[in-house]
Amino acid sequence: MTTTGEPLVRKYSENGVTTLTLNQPERRNSLSMAMLEALSEELSLVADEAETRVVVLASAGRVFCAGHDLREVREQFASHEFQLALFNQCSKVMQQIVNLPKPVIARVAGVATAAGCQLVASCDLAIAADTARFATPGVNIGLFCSTPMVALSRNVSRKHAMEMLLTGEMISAARAAEIGLVNRAVDEQVLDETVYGMARTVADKSGHTLKIGKEAFYRQLEMPLADAYELTSKVMADNMQANDAQEGICAFLDKRKPEWKDS
Amino acid sequence: MTTTGEPLVRKYSENGVTTLTLNQPERRNSLSMAMLEALSEELSLVADEAETRVVVLASAGRVFCAGHDLREVREQFASHEFQLALFNQCSKVMQQIVNLPKPVIARVAGVATAAGCQLVASCDLAIAADTARFATPGVNIGLFCSTPMVALSRNVSRKHAMEMLLTGEMISAARAAEIGLVNRAVDEQVLDETVYGMARTVADKSGHTLKIGKEAFYRQLEMPLADAYELTSKVMADNMQANDAQEGICAFLDKRKPEWKDS
Amino acid sequence: MTTTGEPLVRKYSENGVTTLTLNQPERRNSLSMAMLEALSEELSLVADEAETRVVVLASAGRVFCAGHDLREVREQFASHEFQLALFNQCSKVMQQIVNLPKPVIARVAGVATAAGCQLVASCDLAIAADTARFATPGVNIGLFCSTPMVALSRNVSRKHAMEMLLTGEMISAARAAEIGLVNRAVDEQVLDETVYGMARTVADKSGHTLKIGKEAFYRQLEMPLADAYELTSKVMADNMQANDAQEGICAFLDKRKPEWKDS
Repeated sequence: MTTTGEPLVRKYSENGVTTLTLNQPERRNSLSMAMLEALSEELSLVADEAETRVVVLASAGRVFCAGHDLREVREQFASHEFQLALFNQCSKVMQQIVNLPKPVIARVAGVATAAGCQLVASCDLAIAADTARFATPGVNIGLFCSTPMVALSRNVSRKHAMEMLLTGEMISAARAAEIGLVNRAVDEQVLDETVYGMARTVADKSGHTLKIGKEAFYRQLEMPLADAYELTSKVMADNMQANDAQEGICAFLDKRKPEWKDS
Repeated sequence: MTTTGEPLVRKYSENGVTTLTLNQPERRNSLSMAMLEALSEELSLVADEAETRVVVLASAGRVFCAGHDLREVREQFASHEFQLALFNQCSKVMQQIVNLPKPVIARVAGVATAAGCQLVASCDLAIAADTARFATPGVNIGLFCSTPMVALSRNVSRKHAMEMLLTGEMISAARAAEIGLVNRAVDEQVLDETVYGMARTVADKSGHTLKIGKEAFYRQLEMPLADAYELTSKVMADNMQANDAQEGICAFLDKRKPEWKDS
Repeated sequence: MTTTGEPLVRKYSENGVTTLTLNQPERRNSLSMAMLEALSEELSLVADEAETRVVVLASAGRVFCAGHDLREVREQFASHEFQLALFNQCSKVMQQIVNLPKPVIARVAGVATAAGCQLVASCDLAIAADTARFATPGVNIGLFCSTPMVALSRNVSRKHAMEMLLTGEMISAARAAEIGLVNRAVDEQVLDETVYGMARTVADKSGHTLKIGKEAFYRQLEMPLADAYELTSKVMADNMQANDAQEGICAFLDKRKPEWKDS
């Protein structure tokens, strides 16, 4: 809960799309331990909810997310144990996004820095307002963005990642789109239209298919080519036994719209 | 053979460049088991032919390749064994391209979808007509493009791959060039000129050198940095003992054109 | 030493930025065994010098670096032992750059080919004059750029790397920026201003922080996601115990400039 009694992470579902909104704008939606726990809990919940097919990760206010809560961090300087628990919790949340059996789309308005930039990089898809900006500025305060770079360096090429990490400087949404950190930078006026248009497009697919596809995507990425093909050939042959694949293929050949059973 | 008695994959060689053409336009050059076997056989043959120095992978008609043959797949819904054999065969062909000791250039005119998009991604180089389009639309029919994504995700960055995989939407040739799926998108009028210009440039090199270079390229990509350097340092020192390297270096220093012995 | 008595690699330090300049323009700054040894020695020295916070790698004359010294190589055709020692030494220098506990910025004016292109790819950051050009042309002389491709293929996507390796053709600085081989191509008139502006920005950070960040960056890149997060979570918790992190965070919260102790 925030001091005003509102939840730290707001949740809203409509037509298969669940929006999780970081809801502490007066703290720049920073990833305090409490915020990370709230986000982790919401992610666990949506993982199992049949009515959620796609997740949108959004934020309230003018800052998407400013990274860790430096006041909290300072209060705990003496406790290596707390710091390790904090970064482990943060790394857990990022991996929950990657491992969530449902696609996650970041809706980025405002500034996304440090672990906030990592959140964007960790989502499957990301749409930014053209006024959004991104940085991994930990180096400016003597605390290298070492966990954020895990996600960042898996989105953009080395020299681009290193420029952000070593200089700590902001990049524009247009530049973020150019280097692959976000899918697209759009006029702020059409941000929601673009995000929810894409969300609805994805939510329209078979949930079972999205689940096995997303899972296989991240697994095969870490494998040598031959192993990746061995895994995915089996994934596809198994997929073909699913109701939704057989329905989808029949519907396509019969030129009708498929009806998913998510199985 | 097609029903009209033509081969499923046409072959034409000239000046060291062998073009393999998917030749079932009335079936959108789909990768039926028969087509995959024909392509596999042709790839095996060109691997050993001295007169083939570079392979161009092309297609007849207005569709480059529409992926698997969904009619064939539907007929075999009951047989998990067939499906696994089909995807294994498909994965084998893609890896044959990667492992072929000669460079392979995709010449993409028309639509390349699902395993057709994977074919493009699996080639060493790809030139597309600016009217070509690309998609991994399996998600639309309940069958996630899990094997195509192996090749796709090794060509383009994660968010770009995920956008294609999760939305199933078409991207233009210009966008494919922007994200790295193809080397270049060119006016359809100059597609052949561009493809065969590049093919001739490559065919002009020492075949022995191309072979060891291509092989080492894909091997070192899967290694940690130190191992990659250990491997390739040895590859280069060995390469230096080859006739073609010594001839090439002498020719360069003597300002004359080298004469390759391919050894 | 060069024949004129000048050092093969010139060194100049100012305000925490040390410039190492390849200094044999009459030999196109080629990486002879002597040049590699000189560069290796200078890199070892700057690694431990407190006054060096950032390294700029530059070159004298109109060619950045033309790769190996082919005359030297030809003289030693008979010695596989020499060739292996040469490529091992070259691979060692490239890895010294990656493993150096200080950021390295390439300042590229003129042509960077073969191992010269590899030098650029091996640096953490690279700024090129818009007149600079890049190639891995070994294939033209029968000697595939197998060690250069280790660095190249870790900077740019596969098809872009393969196009350079298989055709041996030059690309422009603008294209190099587009594909991620360099961070930026700038007007030659502002090359130094851009390079040293960036160098000063980076030199202004805590050296301790740069060291642990750079080291963790390349380590985590070679790990699966879960391992990368386990490593970097610990790196960050440890980083938080450093003087510079606590000073940086306090300075940030107190809105003052931090004072680094590099510890």
